[in-house]
Amino acid sequence: MTREFDRGYRGSYRPLVESYPDETVYPADSFRVEWGPIFHRGRLDGSARVLVIGQDPAAHEAIARRILVGEAGQRAQGLLARLGITRSYVYINALLYSVYGQGGGTRHVLDPKIVRYRHRWIDTIVKDQPIEAIITLGQLADQAYQAWRATPLGASSQAVYATVRHPTYPESASRSGTLTKAEAFQRLCDSWNAALDVIHPAVTPDVPVPLRHYGSTILPEDLAPIPDVDLPPGLPAWMGDLDAWAARTGADAQKKRATITVTVPTRARTWPVL
Amino acid sequence: MTREFDRGYRGSYRPLVESYPDETVYPADSFRVEWGPIFHRGRLDGSARVLVIGQDPAAHEAIARRILVGEAGQRAQGLLARLGITRSYVYINALLYSVYGQGGGTRHVLDPKIVRYRHRWIDTIVKDQPIEAIITLGQLADQAYQAWRATPLGASSQAVYATVRHPTYPESASRSGTLTKAEAFQRLCDSWNAALDVIHPAVTPDVPVPLRHYGSTILPEDLAPIPDVDLPPGLPAWMGDLDAWAARTGADAQKKRATITVTVPTRARTWPVL
Repeated sequence: MTREFDRGYRGSYRPLVESYPDETVYPADSFRVEWGPIFHRGRLDGSARVLVIGQDPAAHEAIARRILVGEAGQRAQGLLARLGITRSYVYINALLYSVYGQGGGTRHVLDPKIVRYRHRWIDTIVKDQPIEAIITLGQLADQAYQAWRATPLGASSQAVYATVRHPTYPESASRSGTLTKAEAFQRLCDSWNAALDVIHPAVTPDVPVPLRHYGSTILPEDLAPIPDVDLPPGLPAWMGDLDAWAARTGADAQKKRATITVTVPTRARTWPVL
Repeated sequence: MTREFDRGYRGSYRPLVESYPDETVYPADSFRVEWGPIFHRGRLDGSARVLVIGQDPAAHEAIARRILVGEAGQRAQGLLARLGITRSYVYINALLYSVYGQGGGTRHVLDPKIVRYRHRWIDTIVKDQPIEAIITLGQLADQAYQAWRATPLGASSQAVYATVRHPTYPESASRSGTLTKAEAFQRLCDSWNAALDVIHPAVTPDVPVPLRHYGSTILPEDLAPIPDVDLPPGLPAWMGDLDAWAARTGADAQKKRATITVTVPTRARTWPVL
């Protein structure tokens, strides 16, 4: 069996990963700093042509140690597939740690030290890699992009830009009760289709595909699994598959903040009868 | 803040990690193949002078993706510290996957394909690195060493060798009821002291220390935490600390095989009052 793996942080990325902001920069009342920073997913080897900026990592990401590996990531992966981008991408997040509670992300996304470290990542990526397009997932990521765009290097960027609704917008928007999940999915698709119109002509695909819009929702076939080459060495393949496998559990707020339960998905329980 | 991290699998280690044996080699009735292989901990950069061979990974290791990070690893780390070896070591296991159930390790540790892949690792390590001593933890690891010693490269090795009781021997032996935990700890210490006598004069220390024997048990100060440089990038420091943080949970055998619960240790719950 041969299986690729993510080769980690080398060259200019190494000092970035050795000097990340800790809880003195990301306050522990707003961020789950106790799970450690999670930096990226995708290419750092000079081959990335699309940079995607997400929001913050969640439970799956805290275990896989790569961002956007859960449902949100698999939807985003499907968006890139419609651009013909199956490998030449890199994802970073606006925030290095998972947001804890409401509003923490909004309050801190433009904090100077958070911005400074994020800019070091974006600068390194656009200097090292032939980025043709930048896509942001959600408003915090758009704010992160706009802050960078206001820097000299950002201002000089020729990368085509689109911001889209966050991949889990349908779930969060419909939870607030102001619109149905179906309506929220329609808005998501409209937003992603508009981005496809802008980005599709601008990027060199890995696998050329005709422009194809989403319908009114995200179908199961619109999700793409996380490829092995994006995952740390030896991670089981189910950590990149479509079934959920990580959850914050615990009977009260303390225990829930302290706990992530990892469960091999049913389809991956291929062991003999116990 | 500056924090080192393990730089992963490069050079001759990359093809090893890309071509590991799967469940066709490690049968799923005897090994927890569903959690993926876990390869090593420590130096792969030409600086290792002591090779330690352990047995098989457990729950902490399945999450940290490095071997011997739990209690057993911290005891072993303490043994190396008594040799003055604080950095110039590498650990591998006799078995790439966690043993499931009784006897699976013993039954399969000398399976030809398991042996062949393990020999590729040992060969690469002794060719690439100036190994002065090899220590095996427990009987399966000793069998692994003896099988390698019977190969041409193994026979030519000048590394001093010692096999010791496995770091968690006191717990496993006393569970069987034939001796007390105190007696078992005494045996462990005797075994480790004998190894110190052989190995201490043979290795070039990172930090020279006089030979100092264990007493009749392993004291808390005999455990050494796992240094950041052994852990993947961004892992929280508590994953290398002395408090346990991973457990196999689940109400029945199926669920227990499918589940690992990760809990931030109490001492690391430094967040504000919730």
